[in-house]
Amino acid sequence: MMKALVRLGFLIAVMATTCLLAGSTVRAGSDPLPSWNEGPTKHAIVEFIRATTDPSSTKFAPPEERIAVFDQDGTLWASHPIYPQLMYCLDRLPAVVKARPALAKIEPFKTALSRNMEAISKLSTKDLIKIMAAPLSGMSVERFRADAEKWLETARHPRWGRRYTELRYLPMLELMKHLRANGYRTYIVTGGGQDFVRVFAEQTYGVPPEQVVGTLESVSYRYDKRGRPVLIESAETLLGDVGAGKPEAIHLMIGRRPRAAFGNSTGDRQMLEYTTSGDGARFGMLVLHDDAQREYAYGPALGLPDTRIGAFPQSLHDEAKRQGWFVISMKSDWSRIWAFEQ
Amino acid sequence: MMKALVRLGFLIAVMATTCLLAGSTVRAGSDPLPSWNEGPTKHAIVEFIRATTDPSSTKFAPPEERIAVFDQDGTLWASHPIYPQLMYCLDRLPAVVKARPALAKIEPFKTALSRNMEAISKLSTKDLIKIMAAPLSGMSVERFRADAEKWLETARHPRWGRRYTELRYLPMLELMKHLRANGYRTYIVTGGGQDFVRVFAEQTYGVPPEQVVGTLESVSYRYDKRGRPVLIESAETLLGDVGAGKPEAIHLMIGRRPRAAFGNSTGDRQMLEYTTSGDGARFGMLVLHDDAQREYAYGPALGLPDTRIGAFPQSLHDEAKRQGWFVISMKSDWSRIWAFEQ
Repeated sequence: MMKALVRLGFLIAVMATTCLLAGSTVRAGSDPLPSWNEGPTKHAIVEFIRATTDPSSTKFAPPEERIAVFDQDGTLWASHPIYPQLMYCLDRLPAVVKARPALAKIEPFKTALSRNMEAISKLSTKDLIKIMAAPLSGMSVERFRADAEKWLETARHPRWGRRYTELRYLPMLELMKHLRANGYRTYIVTGGGQDFVRVFAEQTYGVPPEQVVGTLESVSYRYDKRGRPVLIESAETLLGDVGAGKPEAIHLMIGRRPRAAFGNSTGDRQMLEYTTSGDGARFGMLVLHDDAQREYAYGPALGLPDTRIGAFPQSLHDEAKRQGWFVISMKSDWSRIWAFEQ
Repeated sequence: MMKALVRLGFLIAVMATTCLLAGSTVRAGSDPLPSWNEGPTKHAIVEFIRATTDPSSTKFAPPEERIAVFDQDGTLWASHPIYPQLMYCLDRLPAVVKARPALAKIEPFKTALSRNMEAISKLSTKDLIKIMAAPLSGMSVERFRADAEKWLETARHPRWGRRYTELRYLPMLELMKHLRANGYRTYIVTGGGQDFVRVFAEQTYGVPPEQVVGTLESVSYRYDKRGRPVLIESAETLLGDVGAGKPEAIHLMIGRRPRAAFGNSTGDRQMLEYTTSGDGARFGMLVLHDDAQREYAYGPALGLPDTRIGAFPQSLHDEAKRQGWFVISMKSDWSRIWAFEQ
């Protein structure tokens, strides 16, 4: 009986292995990144993932170290003409000002209420954070979530007339899925508010709340009128997840140095620097917005003016070259940008 | 050929299912919690895990919501006579004072340097945090890790003469493993320093760095003399992970309300309250230290003096009763406490 069981077990093991091999052959045969044009960038990505998951490769990364971090605005979804979260805050601002009329007379709220997008896009980061924090303050975590969900369902991007979540980049989504299929955990590391991005990250990118690392706003543990515990959003920022704040937040929330980092602007420089300066195989990539027809084009390297939203100055190009980071061109590296494209 | 493949696939599926069923029968037959005495507490734990993972149960919890949070000091390992992390800091203090002699003349460092454990254990939480933060300040994340690792390897508990990590509670380790075997993710939510606990949590409890939620210390992104990026520990606390800070830190780091929470003192009250006040099946449990022979006994409910380290006043007993939290007795619920016991 025992022998028969052992033999049965062996047979199953052999058959299971055969199936797994057959499965991976099929997978290797199909293109995991169909929205990427063939070329050195696509090849480098696919090769990095292959090598770091091949136990016989010198570039092999143990499963627990397979962490890939993605900036959001301009890296995973469109962030022009202004950040979608800022749009949400501008839409909520009249209600905030109704409750606190004094705000209407002081900056940056005066400019924000004007809805003059050009003036708003020129505000300092500090002012933008003020505008983005104001609507949350005093709301319960659940109420904020419901409110943001409703906005994401109803608001439309001024250019495409589509929900903001539809303006995610298909090639990046394929990349995240390919990484996850190879045992990588994909984290979003964004200057956006952590609780805002958590509202849609799971459905939009397949990234669960605990893998969203955003600008950390504090919450306060209180009790509602019925004595039940409730977490209240506060306007206090614990850690701004931009620039040097990105590696700091990564350490705080993940506690390991990522193997791969993807960004699109100066705000991601330190995240890429931290990621790629570790031992072993590392990967850094920046998305260059050079496709005015299908998305946007900006930046001095293209002979175009720079922008406060997703700044990509010449110095970042130089740094990328020095560090061996890939700069991908939306125009020539991506055959398709949107899922809704025909 | 196709038909043969389909038939083969079917056969494998049937055999795999048989194996899985056989596996779960074996698992159900063996006791997942051998260090727990039979009784209502053990039954309640096993039944909670069974019901929340049974799709036909009204108590079923979807996999993504299966989060269990554990306090560390006094819940997962021995925290008397004083917190092991405090012991580490006291051992490091002479070196800190050598670099900053002025500290020797001011409180709480003066008391700390005296190594009078009774006086030290009576210091305020604020003072304890000061002592615990001082040694970290200015060290790189890597250097701190190496230093703490070395200390954990060499330091010995005054009573048992064993490494502190050997003083983890075997019954709790079994519980964590049983939860994980049923798709729960186990997080440590501790007042201890996040980076300190991360040093040994994976090896000691099977909890990876990203699932350690501790008192959040900020780190600073800097460059070393060779221009390489480095994260430096600072003495600044972003969030004290005690009391109301526990649900706040859980929201920050996990973003979901846990299904089960395990603690041992007033500092865990809000964590249990937050966890068990959510919808659906929830579980709250407190460890009562009532075993002076095998570990320690303290607390007013036992007619013994209360303690600053792991305080369990009568009001917490009353709260547990009102809320339906289990209070487990180390003496009568645990047949074995330590792995090194014969």
